[in-house]
Amino acid sequence: MRKLGVGVLGVGEMGRRHAENLRRLVPDAQLMAVADVSAERAHQAATELEIEHSYSSLEAMLECKGLDAVVVATPDKFHAAGIKLAAAAGKDILCEKPLALTLPDAHELLGVVSKAGVRLQVGFMRHYDPAYAAAMKRIEAGEIGVPVVFKSIGRDKDGPPLSAYQSNVNGMLFYGNTIHDFDLARWLMQDEVVEVHAYTTVAIRPEVAQFGDVVASVVNLKFAHGAIGNIESGAQAAYGYDVRTEVVGSKGSILVGSLNRIPATFLSASGGTQILADHFLSTFADAYVAEMRDFVETMLQDRPPRINGEDGLKALAIAVAAENSHLQGQAVKVSIGNSATAK
Amino acid sequence: MRKLGVGVLGVGEMGRRHAENLRRLVPDAQLMAVADVSAERAHQAATELEIEHSYSSLEAMLECKGLDAVVVATPDKFHAAGIKLAAAAGKDILCEKPLALTLPDAHELLGVVSKAGVRLQVGFMRHYDPAYAAAMKRIEAGEIGVPVVFKSIGRDKDGPPLSAYQSNVNGMLFYGNTIHDFDLARWLMQDEVVEVHAYTTVAIRPEVAQFGDVVASVVNLKFAHGAIGNIESGAQAAYGYDVRTEVVGSKGSILVGSLNRIPATFLSASGGTQILADHFLSTFADAYVAEMRDFVETMLQDRPPRINGEDGLKALAIAVAAENSHLQGQAVKVSIGNSATAK
Amino acid sequence: MRKLGVGVLGVGEMGRRHAENLRRLVPDAQLMAVADVSAERAHQAATELEIEHSYSSLEAMLECKGLDAVVVATPDKFHAAGIKLAAAAGKDILCEKPLALTLPDAHELLGVVSKAGVRLQVGFMRHYDPAYAAAMKRIEAGEIGVPVVFKSIGRDKDGPPLSAYQSNVNGMLFYGNTIHDFDLARWLMQDEVVEVHAYTTVAIRPEVAQFGDVVASVVNLKFAHGAIGNIESGAQAAYGYDVRTEVVGSKGSILVGSLNRIPATFLSASGGTQILADHFLSTFADAYVAEMRDFVETMLQDRPPRINGEDGLKALAIAVAAENSHLQGQAVKVSIGNSATAK
Amino acid sequence: MRKLGVGVLGVGEMGRRHAENLRRLVPDAQLMAVADVSAERAHQAATELEIEHSYSSLEAMLECKGLDAVVVATPDKFHAAGIKLAAAAGKDILCEKPLALTLPDAHELLGVVSKAGVRLQVGFMRHYDPAYAAAMKRIEAGEIGVPVVFKSIGRDKDGPPLSAYQSNVNGMLFYGNTIHDFDLARWLMQDEVVEVHAYTTVAIRPEVAQFGDVVASVVNLKFAHGAIGNIESGAQAAYGYDVRTEVVGSKGSILVGSLNRIPATFLSASGGTQILADHFLSTFADAYVAEMRDFVETMLQDRPPRINGEDGLKALAIAVAAENSHLQGQAVKVSIGNSATAK
Repeated sequence: MRKLGVGVLGVGEMGRRHAENLRRLVPDAQLMAVADVSAERAHQAATELEIEHSYSSLEAMLECKGLDAVVVATPDKFHAAGIKLAAAAGKDILCEKPLALTLPDAHELLGVVSKAGVRLQVGFMRHYDPAYAAAMKRIEAGEIGVPVVFKSIGRDKDGPPLSAYQSNVNGMLFYGNTIHDFDLARWLMQDEVVEVHAYTTVAIRPEVAQFGDVVASVVNLKFAHGAIGNIESGAQAAYGYDVRTEVVGSKGSILVGSLNRIPATFLSASGGTQILADHFLSTFADAYVAEMRDFVETMLQDRPPRINGEDGLKALAIAVAAENSHLQGQAVKVSIGNSATAK
Repeated sequence: MRKLGVGVLGVGEMGRRHAENLRRLVPDAQLMAVADVSAERAHQAATELEIEHSYSSLEAMLECKGLDAVVVATPDKFHAAGIKLAAAAGKDILCEKPLALTLPDAHELLGVVSKAGVRLQVGFMRHYDPAYAAAMKRIEAGEIGVPVVFKSIGRDKDGPPLSAYQSNVNGMLFYGNTIHDFDLARWLMQDEVVEVHAYTTVAIRPEVAQFGDVVASVVNLKFAHGAIGNIESGAQAAYGYDVRTEVVGSKGSILVGSLNRIPATFLSASGGTQILADHFLSTFADAYVAEMRDFVETMLQDRPPRINGEDGLKALAIAVAAENSHLQGQAVKVSIGNSATAK
Repeated sequence: MRKLGVGVLGVGEMGRRHAENLRRLVPDAQLMAVADVSAERAHQAATELEIEHSYSSLEAMLECKGLDAVVVATPDKFHAAGIKLAAAAGKDILCEKPLALTLPDAHELLGVVSKAGVRLQVGFMRHYDPAYAAAMKRIEAGEIGVPVVFKSIGRDKDGPPLSAYQSNVNGMLFYGNTIHDFDLARWLMQDEVVEVHAYTTVAIRPEVAQFGDVVASVVNLKFAHGAIGNIESGAQAAYGYDVRTEVVGSKGSILVGSLNRIPATFLSASGGTQILADHFLSTFADAYVAEMRDFVETMLQDRPPRINGEDGLKALAIAVAAENSHLQGQAVKVSIGNSATAK
Repeated sequence: MRKLGVGVLGVGEMGRRHAENLRRLVPDAQLMAVADVSAERAHQAATELEIEHSYSSLEAMLECKGLDAVVVATPDKFHAAGIKLAAAAGKDILCEKPLALTLPDAHELLGVVSKAGVRLQVGFMRHYDPAYAAAMKRIEAGEIGVPVVFKSIGRDKDGPPLSAYQSNVNGMLFYGNTIHDFDLARWLMQDEVVEVHAYTTVAIRPEVAQFGDVVASVVNLKFAHGAIGNIESGAQAAYGYDVRTEVVGSKGSILVGSLNRIPATFLSASGGTQILADHFLSTFADAYVAEMRDFVETMLQDRPPRINGEDGLKALAIAVAAENSHLQGQAVKVSIGNSATAK
């Protein structure tokens, strides 16, 4: 059987994991090459993963023979450019979230993808997490009746170093963190978010404000068909990596997520203690594998991706509205912008 | 030692519990009388609790010899009138939440209380719940650093019958349910809520809209010193009575609340199952006892109440702002109103 | 309606709680008197509970007019004598566990009770705990199929002071702690324990061995109809009071018990922490109330007690067999002894 | 860097997993070949894992060039023979538990291994499970003081088909299931089990008795230095795969294990429900990977294995004693037998 030849662009923490999964855990894929703006990092990844090719640019990698698809895992600012280049070269694409950092960029890249006739999947890997997937299955089966309230929490453990804010290559909290929950909101509620209201805070780290970013946020959601919701995000919860989601329905509710990293409790006179989850790569390890397997299978079988460019665009549009609400101090309608112009 | 002579006004579900607690579990109190608009209900309660006096009005009960204090547990609409009457008669008061249904009413009653020189405690009993109390103790000890995000959920199991909406003696969701969380927000964050934004829904029971009420809500909170928060309330979660609160701080966080009614799990091929909490009177049974004991002790020792009229007013002001946000579709500043005018 | 006049013998920790419950939470009972070998302690309890009579002996209390029933809550060694005296005086009895410390004592007291025609309930209050009661209800409903394995853990937090061992008024671990689980084994499995095997340890407190006691034990159980089980008991678990039971059935299983005292979790970089249960009086507070209410109602309605003298005898017989196994180093058959001889 | 060439003997459920892990998740290993008594099954595994060689016997596989080590994952009865053959051929070995089904077999194979100068690791993979490993780390750090009680539960979900009993290629419950806990007892308690007492039952499936097997068991343990313990095992718990262990120490305790397969709770009017763990391959997926990585690294670095033949022998000796206790109806001392004779 034919294998999908895949190259990974960007081998930082996330791209490196994708490359490893492709190399080791997706039998139907062949990891052809990795590329990174740091040739040395690309070379090292290739060596460790025992593959032949490493490149210092996407352009160079696109010349690699046998390359069918590209995984875009660069800093967020470069997603749009990476997608456009790969699409123009006729490659199918799995792009990390967010699809882009601005709606015009998103529209433009979707235009290129469409024109090139390639397929694009967006990296909302929580769809592939066993607990989220089980939740969705039950929602679709009608077990909770009509979903009416969506709640989600996403707290990172340690705030990024200030240098990460200064480098200006990623979007603010809404684009890198809350975007997952914006996507979950659409997916689990099977509905569209039409308006949002955001409060944000920099109270415990005021210096991030100068970079347009925030430490934590709460975003109220209004859905098209009457449901409501709220998403809380935090950049530095101190205690751990904490992702939890609830969907309240007319007949029942579902809670997804757990605080604990391992099933062990330590008991002493000072109480019972658990070790807490601390990183998305361990919490969602299985989800990343399942995501990549599904992407590869989807490409090989010439099916439309489960999470496509439009999903990436719509989640982005909610993030944009949330940022505008944060800036304007009032509720803001969600709009994907003038797609005509964008094309 | 002197006992506090207490009368209970209103012996519906809540007042009846207060009367029982006073009769049985607060040794320093003497339940002198109960009163209810239904003389029969009052009489029955008196009989079952083995006390001498029952009345069909507060006015009548106030004549009861030995009465030092009154517990106001009528439908919400009558709280203000009850407080004013009791205060004017020189009785100390424990009033169920909410203090009143409008800010002018609240200001007026506070004026009467102040002029009468009596003491007024508001029934935010969660302060006395062992888990909430332990949380507060740790927050005050600085264990979580600076509190920066407040989250709370309050879901009732079964929605009230439509007749309860029609009778128009209680306020909407914000006044009867969310008011607890508005109070917790002030208490646990040791800060004031200055602005709110609310989305509400009637999606799964549209007929409550005609009564100005809603089925569920999410309320974003902005605090005076930079913190933020969100409260979700629901009138009919179907699965149980679910109250949970989180406070995220710069160094740690605290989660309060549990879904389960009893510590038992039933395991079968179809999964592990727990019996869920279903009513505030069981979830907060201990809190109601501790609240009443503290009220009685506070009165006997001539101390100011831990949760006073101003607390009741400020929580009410947040509820009013939330209702206004719901009506106006935008964020609304919290204001306790012109107390001068109100009088 | 007539009230049951009750006197409490022994107002240490346990008896004091029974007296409080009778005084405050069992409307159908009237706490007539308390008695204690310490007249001062009896007097103080009477004062605090606002009752008229206190005595320094059971004999004296039995003279108290209006006394229908006696709660025996002395040190274990004196249970048998207390029961016999009360029975001979024609009083119904609720006796704390264990019924007695030896089988001959048990047989003798049962003879007296029988001859006197009074009723005797034994204080296995876990039957009244909401979680255990829910478990039993499901077992009786056949939800777990045929029960086949019984497991139970009972760990006390802090070991008794050595003086408690020296005073020699209570039995060893099996009689004061494991006895609850021996009773649960019979009750939940609806079967009899016919043989036991015990290992014990004094490893972390060798000085208790001189008093014939142990620090921890594991007791294997063989039931009459083929089921098996194991009970672990500990006198000093250090971290808390930990009581948990499991019944494994052919179709499902039930787990009862929880480690946590309050529903709160404290999260910090060093983990998630809960406050642990630490005392039977808080863990089983509701059970003690329900037990007393049922006892009082049972007496007033002239029904046979739910947990009778035979239950006390049979649980004791298992404890005796376990102690013999501990002493002899081999499995020992359970025998209630020759009741004829015992008399 | 040199890779360890590994062949897997037996590609049933377990061997297949080992082969997959070697092929995909252990970069320092090269899966050279698989062998199975069914040539077809071996061939299919090789095809799916994209490796060149498959064989229908260990003898044949041992001829494969580049083979450094063998993983023995046959039915239990054939472990001893597989080990001896592989050892005689100079290969290092990872053998699934149990090491053998009889003590003479174990001694004999250990003699062959020793004489051949190869290294042998036994597949007690729980040492590599993150929760068990964290527990051991804390025990070794002295956090729970002196370990004094060991408790463990191992319940399989569905009993094997009767044909599995009839085929007579695996040992009874103690050898295939409880053996893990016998090993954990030695490892976590850092002590030796010197005596055991077992009760067993066939109550809910009497037909397994004819094959010398049981449905469930409880085994009391006595350790050399005064600690005690109990292990419960079950072949058909119906509700799921349930492995839990507790170590009680003088200063604290540790609980390992969780019932839930995914972190999700489904709430409805009939309760809160979780999906339960149902298979060892999912519960211990990470442990199997970590075990294989450690084995491969250990071999490449010429270190002694963490879990060696003696560990396998000693766990087996406890199982033998437990079976004897089951047969004889009394406590039995643990003995590894006359090793001189065995050689």
